[in-house]
Amino acid sequence: MTYQNIETLSWIGDQHGWLRMIDQTLLPTELCEIDCREVETVWEAIKKLRVRGAPAIGIAAAYGVCIGLQTLPPNTDFKAFQKRLNDVVDYLASSRPTAVNLFWALNRMKAKAESLYETENITEISNALFTEAKVIHEEDRRICRSIGKFGQELLRDGDTFLTHCNAGGLATADYGTALAVFFAATEAGKKINVYADETRPLLQGARLTAWELLQRGIDVTLICDSMAAMVMKQGKINGVVVGADRIAANGDTANKVGTYSVAISAKTHGAPFYVAAPVSTFDLTLPNGNGIPIEERDPEEICNSFGKRTAPQGVKVYNPAFDVTPAELISAIITEHGVISPVNQENIAKIVQ
Amino acid sequence: MTYQNIETLSWIGDQHGWLRMIDQTLLPTELCEIDCREVETVWEAIKKLRVRGAPAIGIAAAYGVCIGLQTLPPNTDFKAFQKRLNDVVDYLASSRPTAVNLFWALNRMKAKAESLYETENITEISNALFTEAKVIHEEDRRICRSIGKFGQELLRDGDTFLTHCNAGGLATADYGTALAVFFAATEAGKKINVYADETRPLLQGARLTAWELLQRGIDVTLICDSMAAMVMKQGKINGVVVGADRIAANGDTANKVGTYSVAISAKTHGAPFYVAAPVSTFDLTLPNGNGIPIEERDPEEICNSFGKRTAPQGVKVYNPAFDVTPAELISAIITEHGVISPVNQENIAKIVQ
Repeated sequence: MTYQNIETLSWIGDQHGWLRMIDQTLLPTELCEIDCREVETVWEAIKKLRVRGAPAIGIAAAYGVCIGLQTLPPNTDFKAFQKRLNDVVDYLASSRPTAVNLFWALNRMKAKAESLYETENITEISNALFTEAKVIHEEDRRICRSIGKFGQELLRDGDTFLTHCNAGGLATADYGTALAVFFAATEAGKKINVYADETRPLLQGARLTAWELLQRGIDVTLICDSMAAMVMKQGKINGVVVGADRIAANGDTANKVGTYSVAISAKTHGAPFYVAAPVSTFDLTLPNGNGIPIEERDPEEICNSFGKRTAPQGVKVYNPAFDVTPAELISAIITEHGVISPVNQENIAKIVQ
Repeated sequence: MTYQNIETLSWIGDQHGWLRMIDQTLLPTELCEIDCREVETVWEAIKKLRVRGAPAIGIAAAYGVCIGLQTLPPNTDFKAFQKRLNDVVDYLASSRPTAVNLFWALNRMKAKAESLYETENITEISNALFTEAKVIHEEDRRICRSIGKFGQELLRDGDTFLTHCNAGGLATADYGTALAVFFAATEAGKKINVYADETRPLLQGARLTAWELLQRGIDVTLICDSMAAMVMKQGKINGVVVGADRIAANGDTANKVGTYSVAISAKTHGAPFYVAAPVSTFDLTLPNGNGIPIEERDPEEICNSFGKRTAPQGVKVYNPAFDVTPAELISAIITEHGVISPVNQENIAKIVQ
């Protein structure tokens, strides 16, 4: 099994099938897939970051809704169907709080069902939901390619870019958002070099981004997060591209913790700082980043680094999974509809609506 | 054995004794000492970071000179003694390139010997060298207390400070340089809270600083390096204190990699950024930080995080152990002779000479 012939997420069989995914917690030493046949397994896979990356979480959740409805008995009445659908959606929504694509996908599934509620035809609604999940999945492939196409125009032949965390094929249905920009630039004949932040605590940069770039033949150098400012000062970095988990109406962007620090350093060193994300990442109900809920994760992620205790017993730990980069530090946001620059409410509204 | 009743470095016995040290690579899960009875063991302990921290490295190297001379046969002639001394000094100097305290201590030992060369009395010179190593060790205790005394005046009751890496008792003969400021402020009746960066790749912040602060009853919260900017933005940090490995004549400061990133964030958020270091850390032969040699360490430190492979085979890695923070980002340098502020060549020269 190699990365070239398997997908981050795939649906096996017909509507009564299941979701198969790469277990990303085992990379880069093991490339294994797991099958999710119960909604609880989907929830756990999202919670434990077996699948991660805002777009991929959205796709997994959409399929999770279909899986959650499979257990309904044949003669379920419509009220019970509605209740089960709501319960499944609420349950999946409780897995991770920050990435808005999760809620976007769940809301889209629910809206699809509700548009057919007047039929009270459970089979028809279930069929439509399965189709909708497949559409969300397929759309994301096209979105990745489109983000790559728009984004690669910002890169020059020979550029060296830095990225943080993983916004690649492992975070999406195709070849990523931030990494799509590198892949598309390479396809366009440009030589691109990448510095990958390892991205503590869970090392998505070391385990996933470095692996994915190597697999696709892109020159990649791994550094610790704390070294990003230094390599920028050394003049090694022409710019930064990262993904996003939620973007407010004014452009403030939540992404993996450490992104804000990279953005400050990029500003200090005059390097452009780009965010690459589908329009489903925008949350226009939030005027700015202050309202974005920030997930705090288990202190053990920091204290027990990969099986070995690396911090004293009893130490207090603060482990936010995301931070918010203010819009004024973002040179452009690359979406599947085009590039937003300068980043402000007016330009965002034009692209997103 | 507890931290309260053992020392980072201690000399056991008379001039024919040996150097005992805490093996810091085993902390925080094991508090063990190792005995260095050969100069090779001292060299290895410095190289492998069993002892680390600029002042502690200087002390270990001074004792290492004494240990290296113990193997000379009783009737060694003076020429052979001189050669052995030079060889031992050169050998110990090859252990780590960045911390200038190593070279400072070795040069001081060599100068002491040379001041007595006209006697051609090996016993007398050896005795003087042992005394000099003990003096360097003792001086560092007083230096720590003095840095603490000057530094604590910069902190207010209730302040929360951030530190990076470990510049505490484990890096010195007493209770540190950067951490001495916190300890002295606490002794002065001020309540001080500390955020400790974990400090990848070798986690001196998680393994050593958090442990040391807990042992001494100071409130400490552990974060990943990438979170420092975020906690500053949240208004949680009143200032930063770090140690130093080498300071150029203009105040540019080499310290553990990641320090520069913290300094940029502190500037961005209006938090004062202090460096605490003995005057032996200054290298006035260098006009600025460009000339400071930066040690690059084994890629495995990043790829094999504590026994588990966390990066793909074959990935390129850049692993500098230090970075240079320009003087203009440093609010003050706290030395045993007083506080240098603003940080510039003139003010440094006044304190250091």
